[in-house]
Amino acid sequence: MSEYTITYIKNENPKEKPQSDQLSFGKYFTDHMFIQDYNPDRGWHNPRIVPYQPLTLDPAAIVFHYGQTVFEGLKAYRTKRDNIQLFRPDKNMERLNRSNDRLCIPQIDEEFAIDAIKHLVHIDQEWVPDAPGTSLYIRPFVISTEPYLGVSPSATYQFIVILSPVGAYYEAGINPVKIAVENQFVRAVQGGTGEAKTAGNYASSLKAQEIVSKEGYAQVLWLDGVEKKYIEEVGSMNVFFKINGEIVTPELNGSILEGVTRNSVIQMLKHWDLPVTERKITMEELYQHYQDGALEEAFGSGTAAVISPIGELAWEGHQMVINESKTGPIAKRLYETLTGIQYGTEDDIFNWTTKVSYK
Amino acid sequence: MSEYTITYIKNENPKEKPQSDQLSFGKYFTDHMFIQDYNPDRGWHNPRIVPYQPLTLDPAAIVFHYGQTVFEGLKAYRTKRDNIQLFRPDKNMERLNRSNDRLCIPQIDEEFAIDAIKHLVHIDQEWVPDAPGTSLYIRPFVISTEPYLGVSPSATYQFIVILSPVGAYYEAGINPVKIAVENQFVRAVQGGTGEAKTAGNYASSLKAQEIVSKEGYAQVLWLDGVEKKYIEEVGSMNVFFKINGEIVTPELNGSILEGVTRNSVIQMLKHWDLPVTERKITMEELYQHYQDGALEEAFGSGTAAVISPIGELAWEGHQMVINESKTGPIAKRLYETLTGIQYGTEDDIFNWTTKVSYK
Ligand SMILES: Cc1ncc(COP(=O)(O)O)c(C=O)c1O
Ligand SMILES: Cc1ncc(COP(=O)(O)O)c(C=O)c1O
Repeated sequence: MSEYTITYIKNENPKEKPQSDQLSFGKYFTDHMFIQDYNPDRGWHNPRIVPYQPLTLDPAAIVFHYGQTVFEGLKAYRTKRDNIQLFRPDKNMERLNRSNDRLCIPQIDEEFAIDAIKHLVHIDQEWVPDAPGTSLYIRPFVISTEPYLGVSPSATYQFIVILSPVGAYYEAGINPVKIAVENQFVRAVQGGTGEAKTAGNYASSLKAQEIVSKEGYAQVLWLDGVEKKYIEEVGSMNVFFKINGEIVTPELNGSILEGVTRNSVIQMLKHWDLPVTERKITMEELYQHYQDGALEEAFGSGTAAVISPIGELAWEGHQMVINESKTGPIAKRLYETLTGIQYGTEDDIFNWTTKVSYK
Repeated sequence: MSEYTITYIKNENPKEKPQSDQLSFGKYFTDHMFIQDYNPDRGWHNPRIVPYQPLTLDPAAIVFHYGQTVFEGLKAYRTKRDNIQLFRPDKNMERLNRSNDRLCIPQIDEEFAIDAIKHLVHIDQEWVPDAPGTSLYIRPFVISTEPYLGVSPSATYQFIVILSPVGAYYEAGINPVKIAVENQFVRAVQGGTGEAKTAGNYASSLKAQEIVSKEGYAQVLWLDGVEKKYIEEVGSMNVFFKINGEIVTPELNGSILEGVTRNSVIQMLKHWDLPVTERKITMEELYQHYQDGALEEAFGSGTAAVISPIGELAWEGHQMVINESKTGPIAKRLYETLTGIQYGTEDDIFNWTTKVSYK
C-alpha cells in the first residue's frame, strides 16, 4: 500500500444533520475527518478518513505549550446543478505550506492534500447544505504532537481536515458592518507571524475583538505594529477602499495575511479594467479622503463573507459613515460575481473552481 | 463536596523513574497530573489529581486553531535536609493570571492553584531527583476546549499541571553561552502578547532559533519589534549587562516577559547594595560600551538555567567576546546565592521558598 492510499473507516453512526437555518458558523461537524501522521522516519504517512472523533494527545504535546500549528479555511459549494465544487483550493494549500515554513512544520504534498479534501467532502457530500448562501466550511490544520517541553520544533505532527456546514453569512442580503480601528492592540508585526495562518495571531486578537464587540462593532481594523499608522487588515478579512474611482488595498508587507479572496478581487477588478492598486495607506490619508468626499466605498474580503461592505469606521473619535452605510456598486458587483462563480451561476472565466467528483 | 476538594485517583501502574544522568529537560513525566475544568455555569470546578494520561479533545477545540492558551514554568527542589520546596510559586500564579487576562481566559484562584501544585508534587515526591542541580519542573497550563471555529474566546477550559524531572542545566558547573542578536525575526511588539506567557510567542520564535542553532548559537537575543534597536530578552531568559560597575536590564515595556528570576536578581542586587537599573538599552549603546572596555559581564536569568552567563554575543558581523568568555563575579554570586536558596543551603532571607508538606 503506498503512502498515498487513503484508508477509509466508515462512520456507522452518522449524526442527524442540522436544519439550514440553524447552521451559523463552525458549530456543527460532519461524520468524518481526514488525518495523516508525520514522523521523521516515514515523513507524512498513514492518510485515513475516519469517523469524526476526539484527538488523543499527550498533555505535553508541543501544540498546547508553544502553539506550533497552522490552519486553512476554504469552502465547498453546492451548485444549482447539484454539483459540489471547491474555490481555489490550490491557493489555500500553497498558503498552508508558506505557513508551515514559517512555523518550522514539514511541507505537505499540496496536490495530495487537495485530493484528500475532495475525497473527504465526497464522502460527507450530504452535509453540503443547499439553502442559498450556505456552504460546507473546510478546515485543514496541522498540529505538533511530540510530548516535549523544550522550545523547539516538534518531531511529529498530524495533518487533519474537518468539515462544518455553515449558514448564509448574510441573512437578508449583503449588508454593511461597523468596524473600529484598533489603536491599542497589535495583531502582527514585520518579522513576526502575521503572514502565516497560525494560532498565535488569532489568540492575540481576542482581547481587542472582545472590547470592540461590547461597543457594537463587528470587527477591528488593524494598523501596522510599528507606527500604528498604516492600515493592515480586518479581523479575518483583507480590506479595500474606493478612493476617487481607484480601488486601493494595503500591499503585502510580511505582516498581512494574503487572502485568497483578496487575490480573486484584484484579478476580477483588473479583468473589469477598473484601476486597483496595492500600496501603503495610512488612516490619516483615508480620513483626509473621507473628509474630501473622495472615499466612495470600503469593504472587506474573506472566505467567510466573501465581500463585507464597511458602512462605518470609527477612528480616534471620528465616526466615518461611508457611502451612507449602504453597499456600494463595486462591493455588490464583486459579491455577486464571486458568489456566482462559487455557486456555479456565473461563468468561471478564471478556472477557479474544482469539482468534487472523487474517483 | 466543595469546589475546592481535590479528588485523587491513584496511578496503580507507576512508571520506572529515569536515572538522574538521563534526565535532560522536559522529556519524562511523572505518574500523576492535576486537572480542573471551567464552564460558564460552574466556573472552575472538579479539581482532580489523576494518573498522567492523554487529553481527549474535539478536533475543533479552540486551542488547536486560535491558540487561546497560557502556561507557567517553575520548579520543586529537593533540599539537603530532604525537604521539597518551591521557589516563589505566588509570582508564577500572579503571572498566569496576567497572561489569562491578556488571552481572555477566566482568572484562576492563585492560592488554590499553589495548593493544588503542592498536593500534586507531594503525591509524586519520589520523582523529585536528588542529584546536584536536578529538580522537578512544574508546568501549569490552561487550554481552551470549546469545539467552535469562530474566532472568539472559548466557553470552556482546562487548567492542567504536569511535572517533569529535569537534569542539571550545567553538567560541569556554570558555563557561558554564545548568543546571536536577531535582526530579521521579531518575537513580540507592544500591543501584542509579549508580556504574556502564551503559546504564540514561542511559535513565532522557533524559526529564528532554528537558524541560529545551525550556526552554533545557544539562543537568540530579541530586539524590540518596532525599531529593532532596543534589547528585549533572550529566548527564555531575561538579560542583564554589567556596564562600568552598574547592572542594567531592559525595563518592562509590554513586550518583555517579566521573569520571576529577573525580579529575584534585581531584589538580590539591591540587597547587596549593587547599582541596578531597569532602562531602555540599545545594541548600539551596548556595542559602544563593549568597544570602550566598559561591558564587564552579560548574563541571562530564567527558571531553567537560573543564571546563564553570555560569553559571546554576535551582532551585525561583530563577535563580542565578553569577560574573556568566562563567568563573571556577579553572575557567579547570583547563581550561587539563588541556587543556594532554592536547594536550602543558603538562608532564605526574602522568604522566597515554600515547603511542600501537604496536609
Ligand atoms: C487574518 C485574516 N486576514 C484575511 C483573511 C482572508 O483570507 P481568505 O480570503 O483567504 O479567506 C483571513 C481569513 O481567512 C484571515 O484570517
Ligand atoms: C520569553 C521568556 N522570557 C523570560 C523568561 C524567564 O522567566 P522566569 O525567570 O520566570 O523563568 C522565560 C522563561 O520562563 C521566558 O519564556
